[in-house]
Parts: sequence; C-alpha cells; structure tokens
Amino acid sequence: MAEAATAATERTSRRERGGGRIARREARSHGPEGLHRPYIVRNIPTYDILSEENLIRIEDTAERILSEIGIEFRGDPAATALWKKAGARLDGDLVKFERGMLREILTTAPAEFVQHARNPENSVLIGGRSVVFSPAYGSPFVMDLDRGRRYGTIEDFRNLVKLAQSSPWMHHSGGTICEPVDVPVNKRHLDMVYAHIRYSDRAFLGSVTAESRAEDSIDMARILFGADFVDRNCVIMGNVNVNSPLVWDATMTTALRAYARANQAAVIVPFILGGAMGPVTNAGAIAQSLAETMAGCALTQLERPGAPVIFGNFLSSMSLRSGSPTFGTPEPAIGSMVVGQLARRLKLPLRCSGNFTTSKLPDGHATNEGTMSMLAAVHCGANFILHAAGFLDGLLSMSYEKFVLDADFCGALHTYLDGVKIDDNQLALDAFREVGPGGHFFGCQHTLANYETAFWDSQLADNEPFEKWEAAGRVDAATRANQRWKKTLAEYEAPPIDPGIDEALRDFMDRKKADMADAWY
Amino acid sequence: MAEAATAATERTSRRERGGGRIARREARSHGPEGLHRPYIVRNIPTYDILSEENLIRIEDTAERILSEIGIEFRGDPAATALWKKAGARLDGDLVKFERGMLREILTTAPAEFVQHARNPENSVLIGGRSVVFSPAYGSPFVMDLDRGRRYGTIEDFRNLVKLAQSSPWMHHSGGTICEPVDVPVNKRHLDMVYAHIRYSDRAFLGSVTAESRAEDSIDMARILFGADFVDRNCVIMGNVNVNSPLVWDATMTTALRAYARANQAAVIVPFILGGAMGPVTNAGAIAQSLAETMAGCALTQLERPGAPVIFGNFLSSMSLRSGSPTFGTPEPAIGSMVVGQLARRLKLPLRCSGNFTTSKLPDGHATNEGTMSMLAAVHCGANFILHAAGFLDGLLSMSYEKFVLDADFCGALHTYLDGVKIDDNQLALDAFREVGPGGHFFGCQHTLANYETAFWDSQLADNEPFEKWEAAGRVDAATRANQRWKKTLAEYEAPPIDPGIDEALRDFMDRKKADMADAWY
Repeated sequence: MAEAATAATERTSRRERGGGRIARREARSHGPEGLHRPYIVRNIPTYDILSEENLIRIEDTAERILSEIGIEFRGDPAATALWKKAGARLDGDLVKFERGMLREILTTAPAEFVQHARNPENSVLIGGRSVVFSPAYGSPFVMDLDRGRRYGTIEDFRNLVKLAQSSPWMHHSGGTICEPVDVPVNKRHLDMVYAHIRYSDRAFLGSVTAESRAEDSIDMARILFGADFVDRNCVIMGNVNVNSPLVWDATMTTALRAYARANQAAVIVPFILGGAMGPVTNAGAIAQSLAETMAGCALTQLERPGAPVIFGNFLSSMSLRSGSPTFGTPEPAIGSMVVGQLARRLKLPLRCSGNFTTSKLPDGHATNEGTMSMLAAVHCGANFILHAAGFLDGLLSMSYEKFVLDADFCGALHTYLDGVKIDDNQLALDAFREVGPGGHFFGCQHTLANYETAFWDSQLADNEPFEKWEAAGRVDAATRANQRWKKTLAEYEAPPIDPGIDEALRDFMDRKKADMADAWY
Repeated sequence: MAEAATAATERTSRRERGGGRIARREARSHGPEGLHRPYIVRNIPTYDILSEENLIRIEDTAERILSEIGIEFRGDPAATALWKKAGARLDGDLVKFERGMLREILTTAPAEFVQHARNPENSVLIGGRSVVFSPAYGSPFVMDLDRGRRYGTIEDFRNLVKLAQSSPWMHHSGGTICEPVDVPVNKRHLDMVYAHIRYSDRAFLGSVTAESRAEDSIDMARILFGADFVDRNCVIMGNVNVNSPLVWDATMTTALRAYARANQAAVIVPFILGGAMGPVTNAGAIAQSLAETMAGCALTQLERPGAPVIFGNFLSSMSLRSGSPTFGTPEPAIGSMVVGQLARRLKLPLRCSGNFTTSKLPDGHATNEGTMSMLAAVHCGANFILHAAGFLDGLLSMSYEKFVLDADFCGALHTYLDGVKIDDNQLALDAFREVGPGGHFFGCQHTLANYETAFWDSQLADNEPFEKWEAAGRVDAATRANQRWKKTLAEYEAPPIDPGIDEALRDFMDRKKADMADAWY
C-alpha cells in the first residue's frame, strides 16, 4: 500500500501544484449523471479454489519446466546477456533457471502501481483490490448488425475509442481496440496512440509490434505527460505475448524491455490454446503459463529493477472434434481462479480472462460464454481486465453491439464487486417494524431513504412486462445495443486537450511517417 | 455423511435384493453416450464472501425479527397449535419465537438425504457437496420461436418433461414445469404428477396448491414406490412459498405439513422482491429470508421430527424506475452467496437461485442475466437448483429454446464444478519434455492419452470459423436451440414402466377426477 499511497500523493500534488503541462489540462468528470468511477475497489474476496498443497505442486512443476526444460529467448542478444549476468544457464538461445531464481528476481517488481491518465481523475490503480476494465484488443475485423463483418479501419478504431470513453463502466481506453488495416502496418501505431490520446482522456496501451513502435508510443506519452513525469510514473503499458510453448521471440522481448527501460508497464501474457500451444490438461497449461509469465516478468526486472509489470494470462481450450479454438468455456474459467491464486503468491498485479466467446453474433451463445468468462476474471482477482468489452468470433472480430452489451455488464459488475454492506441501515430492522407481517415496502420510510442507491439498473436490459415489450416492437438485446451505440456516437464529445500538446503530437506523427515508406505487411 | 452412507446402502440393497415393485422396474442409463450422471459432486469449494462477524449480524437481525416482530401463520390452527406446544408466544395468528428456539428445533432436520427416483440410477443425493439441476417451475405461459408466447397446455408440459428427461445434464424432472391451463385447476396436479412419472424416470416435485393435492401427489408416489418405502424414504418433494413479508398462509403450511407428515421433503422458499415484499437493502432482505425460511423449516420438524427439508431462497430486485421486478441482477447473485453461508451454518440442504432473467427472448440479455444467476447458484453451494433451465420473461414464460440452451450450460457446469485435478498426468511434465520449446502438442503422446476426457464440448455453441458458419447460413444460438428441441422430441422414447403400476396410477387419477366437478380458478 505504500506505493499506492505515494501514487495518490503524487496525484494530489499534481493537481495542487498548478503549473506544468499536466496541470494545464482541463480535468473533468465523465459519464452520465456522474456515475463514472476511475476503477473499482473490490469489496468481495477473491474466489480461491485450490489448496496450498496443490498450488505448491503447480509451482513445483513450473520450476521444473524452467530448470529442466528451459525457455528459448530467440534473436535478442541483449536479453540473453541479461539472463547470463543474472546467473541463468545458457545453451545457445535456450535459457534454464535454477529453482527459485525467477521468484527472487521478481521481488523488485511493485505489487501495485498507478497508471496515469491525461485526465488525473481517470488515473487507475493496478494491483491489490482494484479492478480496471479495458476493451477487447487485437481483432483484425469489426462487426455490426448493419454491415456485418469487415476489416477494421482507423474510423472504426476511433469510433470504438469513443464508445469506451462514453461508457461510465469502462476504466481504460485499451490498445489495439481493432486493427486499422487501412493504415500501413509500420505507421498505424502512431494513429492508434494518437486516437487514444485525442478521443479519450483515460489510460491506454501502446504498440508492441516492434521495438521502434514501442519507443514511438512511449515518446508520444512523453510529449503528453512530460519526459520527467514519464520516467517516474507509469503512463502507458504494452501487452506482450509469449510464443507458447516456452519461446520468447525478439519482437516481444525487445518491446517488453523498451517499456521496462522507460519505467512503463509490460503486461506479460502467454496465450495457451490447450492441445496446441500447451497440454490438454488444465493443470499442465497453468504450470506452463506460470513458467512463461515468470520468465517474462523477471526480464523486465533485469532490464530495470522496480519497473511496473503485470502478470498476465490467457487460457483457452479447443474443440478436439474440429481443432477449432474455443473461448469462454469452463476449463479456462476454472483455470483463471488458480492463476489468480498463483499471481497473488508472487505479489504481482494480475491481468486474466475477459469477455470471451466464439460466437459470431451478439446472441445467447455470446453472452453465456462471455459472462462465465468475465465472472472468472473478477472472481480470480484480476486487476486489469483486457477484453472486457466487444470480444466476438474467437477474438477475430470486435463487435459494436457486443461492446455496448459488455460495457453494460461491466456496470452490473460494479454493483456485484461492491458485495453486501452490513450496517444498521442495510439490515433494516426498523423497516420491518414499520411494515410488519403482510405489509408492503414500496412506500415505507426505509425504502424512500434508500431507493436511490438501491439496485443496479441496466440501460440495455428490457425489464418491462411482456405486453409493453411486445407493443414496443419485440426488440431483442442486439437491436437495442445497435440503437445504443449509434446514439452514443452521435452524442459523443471529445474531451478537451491542450492545443500545444495536440500540435506537438501531430508534428511527431508527421515526422515519423515522413521518415518511412509505407509497409503493408 | 452418515445419512448419505445409509441412503447409498439403501439404494444398493434395493438393487441387490431383487424382489418387490421397485426392483421389477427396469433400470437403464440415460443420455447420449452414457454421459448422464445422476447428480454432481462438486470438486470446488463454495464461494464464501462474508465474514463470520457479518454473518452473525445477519443472524442476529433475523432473530430480532422473529422475537420482536414475529411471523403470522394465517388460518392453520394445527400449525399454531404446534407452535404453542413448542413454546412460541402467540397473539392470535402472530407467532413470536425466543432467540435460538428455531435453530434448536432445526437440529432434527437431516443435513442431507436421498430423493429416490423410480429408476434407482437416477436417485439424487441432496445436501453436502451434491448439486442437482431441476427445470424452471411455475410459468403460466410457454414460448417458442415458431409460435411465440401462449398459455401452457398439458401437451407442453409433457414435451418439457421429455426434454428434461432427454438431457444428460439435467438431474431432476422438476414440478410445475409449466402450468397446463387446459386442465381444470383442481385436477391438473394429477396429470402433472402422472406426466413426471410416465415420461421421466427421474425424481420430481408434487403439488402444493392445496393440502388435498399434496396428499394426492404423495399417494401417487406410494403407488409407484410402495407405501412402506415412501414412509422411510424421500421420493417426492413440494416447493412451498412464504407470503413474504413475514406471513405463512394456510395453503402453504398445510401443504408443507402434508409433505413432512409423509416423511417427504418440503422446499421452503421466501420469494422476496426487494422494495415490495422486502426492504430495498440486500442485507435486510437476506435477514428476512433467513427468518422466514427458518420458521417454515422448523414447522416441518414440529410436524415430524427428522423429516427432510430444504432451506430455500429466491431473492430478486426491482426496477425502481418502472416498478417492474428484475431477475438475474447482481444484488440477488451476491445475496445468494451469503444465503449459502447461512444455510451451511444451519446444516440444512440449500435450494438457491437459478437461471433467472426478465428477457422475453432467448437472446444476449437472457443468457447474460441467466449465466450470472446460475453461477451464483453453484458458487453459493446450492444443492437443489430449481429453475436451472427454461426460465424467461421474469418466470412468466417457460421457453423451449432457452430450456435447451440452459441444459447445455448445465453440461458446462459439470466440467466447471469438477475443478482442476492435480496429479502427475494432469501436470504433464512429460509432455513438456516431449514437445519442448516451440513445439506443438496436437499429436503428442500426452494429448493422445488425454484428449478424450479433455475440454467441455458444447452441443449448441458454434465454434466453427466465421467462413464455415457463414456458409452454413449464419445461424444464431436461438435458432440452433429451436432445431435442437424439435430433434430431441422427435427422437424421444419414454422410459419403460411396469404396466401394473401404470394402470394403478391411471385408476387413481380417474377416480379422483370423477369425484370432483371441474374448477377453473
């Protein structure tokens, strides 16, 4: 908590001290009726399903994978040099780690940290009891009910950043909210980072697809926040994937080291499809994931001890009839709970699960899988929940309708994570005295005093009686969502930004773009 | 566990001893590919969200409601006489209970018991770590995609019993699976009980709408199982509702006493809509529910000490904008977890939550709410989960499509509740040795040895790639469900029944029907 307290002080002092770039930015609160909270502080415990004894068996298996089989770090001599210096055993690119070595290196990583947003009201605490919802990440396609599935564009990207910014229940602007395939591959990171900065005033993720793109992303954050502030505080994160099984490639390790070097947070995420990139048994996939994540997290600490880092996880299963990947199934949901326990034993902030599904429509299949998967995320104690909104089609498509349905569910989860309050008012003994057996609570004093804060009220569920719903045209949830996102985009207003900063960002992008020929692969 | 052991012995001895009505019935296993298990034995812990200290505050509030405000038992002199004899304070129909009195009376109730099915393979253990899924209960309407919403008929009733019987993931045939409104009100209980016996060979619920109908239901069970067996074993249950707040009426208390008198299980269920039949604050609604349920459960023990009884619960919330009830919202989900903790402290089997929603379609709204609600049921440790399949429209409609979608999700929950197994095979160290960094697990020895038991494989989810799904006609989940229930009904075969028993049941019904004029209200 010392870290959080320091961060909170930092935030306050930034507001109070008046001068500087950041203080010149206008702060304003967001969301309808002031509902927006920058993040959730959970008031219910995590759901711990495995015994200490069994957790130790998984940890032991991970240590044996690390010490007996090892992990390959391909094509990044600086990374292997760091491992050698730290005392690992090297055989070419293959790195083996003595039992306990990675756990020891990881003691320098902070248990929690603040990711600052350009609007200080939206800075998020990551770690401990905090929960941060961030949109789905990385889909090449977008979908909506009107136009179906198509490749994402920078216009879609901006639209989706705007939808996230407009939701009181999302806390973070995300990263590659969809791939803007109409922009050259080697330049789109600039447009993506700019869109997050310009159309949102929440925290966001930068590029990881090349070391130079990671550095460009961080440079843009420096323009926004000031280089000194960035060196002392986390303002941007990068989400890097292991090449499971047991391989880290140079693209990912140079990107994660770029973030760590700049004191920015890398999110270290194995993506294990059981039966393909990992074993078909859940316990083995979890042990593998622990080994791979510990190695990636530890590398950030070798690059810069004390750099913020997130222990990430993305388990999924596959249909062994068709070979298709499956998402939102029970094994990964259960596996997430175990991963949460393991991350807490390492004292690292956790990214885990999200609103996963293979459905190609925002239908009953999508929200069944998505809801189980998303509840696993909040039950397992994930602090940063990427893919909290919009995920369809096994991550291949970002759906406009699913985005607003999921964001609404994120609202319900605010109430859920608030748990049950126990005090005299909540226990309501006076209400029972007033109403008595057979009475009605609708107009009683206790109800009048409490109804404004009572009960989650979804903006997308239709709770009306059947007859009223029928008279209104028998509208289903997907169609309501379609109407909702159009209304939200029509009403969207960009948060204000300092014109000088905006100009500096545009200059930076123009220069970078002019320096490179377009590349499309 | 002594009780469960006895019951299991009983079951074995029934199978072994050969003679008698029950042994003459043919036993056969059910479900596709022998998947059917009679019930789940959970392998993950319950999700306990409240501290001991706060549970005690809720229990204390319930005791104060019981001792200071009291509960009215209206119009059942036998019930009030039982309370008087037990030492309660009476003021007309208002009964007040000394602190601790109900808890003391409840010590005679079994912590777990077996409800026997006519096929002994399908008998269910209720209590402890067991989980039993039962269909939704009590809707006056039915819905399907072809015909929309209409009043339920006895044909619908039989269809839905057949769908439940055909699912390997349902464990129980339920009770009023829909109201057969084409049968006179005073006779339909006979047709309903007969349909459960004839078209299913699983355990079921009888009527509670009048004492005589409860007794008819139990008499039919006696024809099926033999009177002696019924006196010694639970073979039928009755689901009785409190008239919240704090009223038990004679219809319900005479029915619950009829079940208890026959040594059959009553399920005692307050139905508390926060803001109407209870306070708008969750803690108060939970305390009320505890008070009301304890009183109902205790009355069964006064009627017949040792009779099986289930601690039931049905929390819901309301939209304070429209006054409409809401279902599947976060407050009841969280409340269920607390109710689970309270029931375990009373050492009573628990019925709690179900697949609740207000949606009028089997759409994304329905399965989002339903999934959260159903996961609350399994997390809270509910042993008997009524409303596990088919619930739509705030309980006003039983949906054919939602039934099969929910039953499929019940299948996923079998895997979920199985948790993570930790042993050398599951930890898969040998697989990592075999595959190594950068390899592929698809064809490895470990995968070949384990793929048949790996991963839940939904029959209704579409995990195919988008292009294949598109080529197959872009079918949504509701439409797949529509196709599925029609196929299931077309392929349904009734389980065999002893012709002598069938004739005796029909004779009983004919006599009972001939004795009464039709009543339609």
